[in-house]
Amino acid sequence: MADTWATSGIDLHLDLTGRRVRAGLEDALREAIATGRLLPSTALPSSRALARDLRIARNTVAEAYGQLVAEGWLTAQRGSGTRVADRRTPAAALPPAATAELARPRYNLRPGSPDLSAFPRQEWLAAARRALAGAPAEALGYGDPRGRPELRLALADYLARARGVRVTADRIVVCSGFTQGLGLLCQALRARGASVLATEEYSLASHRDVINAHGLQRISLPVDRDGATVGGLGDADAALLTPAHQFPLGVALAARRRSQAVEWAERTGGLVIEDDYDGEFRYDRQPVGAMQALAPERIVYTGTASKSLAPGLRLGWLVLPAYLMDDLVAAKTQADVQSGTLEQLALAEFIRCGAYDRHVRRSRLAYRRRRDRLLTALQRRAPEVRITGIAAGLHALLELPAGRGEDEIIAAAADRGLALEGLDAYRATAEQHRGPALVVGYGSPPEHAFTGAVARLCAVLS
Amino acid sequence: MADTWATSGIDLHLDLTGRRVRAGLEDALREAIATGRLLPSTALPSSRALARDLRIARNTVAEAYGQLVAEGWLTAQRGSGTRVADRRTPAAALPPAATAELARPRYNLRPGSPDLSAFPRQEWLAAARRALAGAPAEALGYGDPRGRPELRLALADYLARARGVRVTADRIVVCSGFTQGLGLLCQALRARGASVLATEEYSLASHRDVINAHGLQRISLPVDRDGATVGGLGDADAALLTPAHQFPLGVALAARRRSQAVEWAERTGGLVIEDDYDGEFRYDRQPVGAMQALAPERIVYTGTASKSLAPGLRLGWLVLPAYLMDDLVAAKTQADVQSGTLEQLALAEFIRCGAYDRHVRRSRLAYRRRRDRLLTALQRRAPEVRITGIAAGLHALLELPAGRGEDEIIAAAADRGLALEGLDAYRATAEQHRGPALVVGYGSPPEHAFTGAVARLCAVLS
Repeated sequence: MADTWATSGIDLHLDLTGRRVRAGLEDALREAIATGRLLPSTALPSSRALARDLRIARNTVAEAYGQLVAEGWLTAQRGSGTRVADRRTPAAALPPAATAELARPRYNLRPGSPDLSAFPRQEWLAAARRALAGAPAEALGYGDPRGRPELRLALADYLARARGVRVTADRIVVCSGFTQGLGLLCQALRARGASVLATEEYSLASHRDVINAHGLQRISLPVDRDGATVGGLGDADAALLTPAHQFPLGVALAARRRSQAVEWAERTGGLVIEDDYDGEFRYDRQPVGAMQALAPERIVYTGTASKSLAPGLRLGWLVLPAYLMDDLVAAKTQADVQSGTLEQLALAEFIRCGAYDRHVRRSRLAYRRRRDRLLTALQRRAPEVRITGIAAGLHALLELPAGRGEDEIIAAAADRGLALEGLDAYRATAEQHRGPALVVGYGSPPEHAFTGAVARLCAVLS
Repeated sequence: MADTWATSGIDLHLDLTGRRVRAGLEDALREAIATGRLLPSTALPSSRALARDLRIARNTVAEAYGQLVAEGWLTAQRGSGTRVADRRTPAAALPPAATAELARPRYNLRPGSPDLSAFPRQEWLAAARRALAGAPAEALGYGDPRGRPELRLALADYLARARGVRVTADRIVVCSGFTQGLGLLCQALRARGASVLATEEYSLASHRDVINAHGLQRISLPVDRDGATVGGLGDADAALLTPAHQFPLGVALAARRRSQAVEWAERTGGLVIEDDYDGEFRYDRQPVGAMQALAPERIVYTGTASKSLAPGLRLGWLVLPAYLMDDLVAAKTQADVQSGTLEQLALAEFIRCGAYDRHVRRSRLAYRRRRDRLLTALQRRAPEVRITGIAAGLHALLELPAGRGEDEIIAAAADRGLALEGLDAYRATAEQHRGPALVVGYGSPPEHAFTGAVARLCAVLS
């Protein structure tokens, strides 16, 4: 086997044109270095390898290298061969990022993220290692758009056990987070002729954007202390609900509302999308089971690893009625063929070996402690603030006393390095049905920053 | 901290209704076991923990457990607590998978996959471990929709060096494989008013499906020995091309065709999408650099880890003209927020530490050897077959001699346990411009199966 360009240790592309070969090679290398295509310290192929590959004399390459060394473009040292010299080249500077998240405040009590510093890195890596070691080669290829069978089996077991979901592995589609799952559902609904999807009046704007982008009309369901007022579903084709812990108001959907929604779905052929984003986290009483169990053929159960583990995993799952399976599989195939299989295998093993249950339990304890500390601090320092939505999840609703506005408090907090979010950011309709409030995500800060974050929150509220 | 349901080692949801508490608990447990929600060997919470959490007497739980042990639903053993008994429950049987890929033939020479058994599992895991150990916590959260900066910087360096791409990290959007990237591009093009996208006459049907699904009209460009006949672009808004190695015909796009396409794009404001799916693999001469370098503001460069590493990673990348960045970021955000960050970090480290270059070099050697063995075998056993498209990539075109048809040969191969694909499967138009041929992917089989696969191919062709 000859040592050719094709086998040299580094991939390098040069435009070598013109008749004066040595000058052409020199120019090509200069240009590659000047434009940053060849970075400082990059090792070049040996003159022998490069010459053979370009089908020119070895001497020509050696002379070109020598010239560029003389000019300071390259360095040649015994033992380490010829390398690109360190020069002050214009760095490929990274411009300001496109998202605001990257400008991180010192303290953060915005909702939507678990404590990322608590991600169980060692246990995750151990599961990933075991999973990859045991996986068949085909697991690395194109496969079932529903996702790896290992993960769907592990999820079916877990969801039945922990959330009371009625599920078998063949009804699960693994997707890249809830956002993708919602988009795929909208696509399937549109393809089946749906035109109207109801959302809760207070909800995530990014979810409403996905719904709008798929050409579905939206109507809003007001939310009271019993959750979404599903009596308003009327002629809607589908409804997106957060039954276990309304986001952002924090109430649970009452039993009779659940029945009412199921009755609506069965009567009209409508579909309920159950967004169980933080169903693992409840503190004071037995969990509210998944609503899906009431009517598995009319309710899509959706879950995610974004709150229980980390959003960066981009792993979510849909448990689907039979009639939607084919459409969802087609939509997923067209979206990205399948979700990444290595992360799926790792999560399957992470669940199977019990690490997921352990992590959820640890996190639940930690978040409950945080919630209790938050409550205690607020009751002492800001007793006029009314706190609700705290039986579950990673966030609480803080209703502000008369005379205090969201914007004022958010600005005062920002001055102290604390990021907060107001309820108004979640309002879907023009009417203002509720007084000013904050949606406080007590899961977000790392443990060491929680005390400081709560102190600053109390300072701006007292 | 009390030992409550919230802190018990396992998540379990029971519907405990009715007044007769013990009977209700027994029924709920029986139902959970009978329906498979509680799987054999699952450990139940201690009677103390369960009682506290359900706010019932501990004795009630102990009695219910005792009853179910007596009935055979549960087992109780000193040391290991109470567990679900092994019963013949109806298994959550996995129905036949939705994709044909899962029914794997013994031998496979269909194109589209690298040798999955050669995936560098140890090096990948080592890179993933180092990457995760060194990553900041925010890397696990919601972040830049373009992808992790570590990966975009590593890709910018690699693509400039290895493929001659003009690129900085801020022009890269990491996506979940080429399929997603193409979908996002179609979405952006549609939003900008585009209506017609040209594809090569022979191309992947799944790519054409994505284009159609986004409401774009398609026109087809015939392909000759110089690649796509870009003179036919006319009023198209965009063109999807495979310049380095036409898929499936295997020819390279000639230099004057490249200039012609660039001239078209600059004159009309059109966009070229350069699908560089197997640009790493070329054997006999210096690589053809990325066409994108000719006109970075009119050409989107697209690459993928699907051929160089594994399709299951679902990692691809777009290098974009400035004018498309915002639209692509918006489309990616709406599709799935961002691609999985752990795989991105792992790939960044895999490239940075040189493992990617090493793996590509090893693979290139292995595939060149396979190609040479395929050529030698066919020349000896089936000399009437004309073989083209072999200077690069992982597949070859085998033009069949007069009197032999694709279907007949594919069927004969299937009888011998060998999966083959005919050229006709890639034809986009009704007209049949070419004689029967096979598209043979010599990258797909694991090393140990390659000899057997080639022997069977020769047997059906000779």
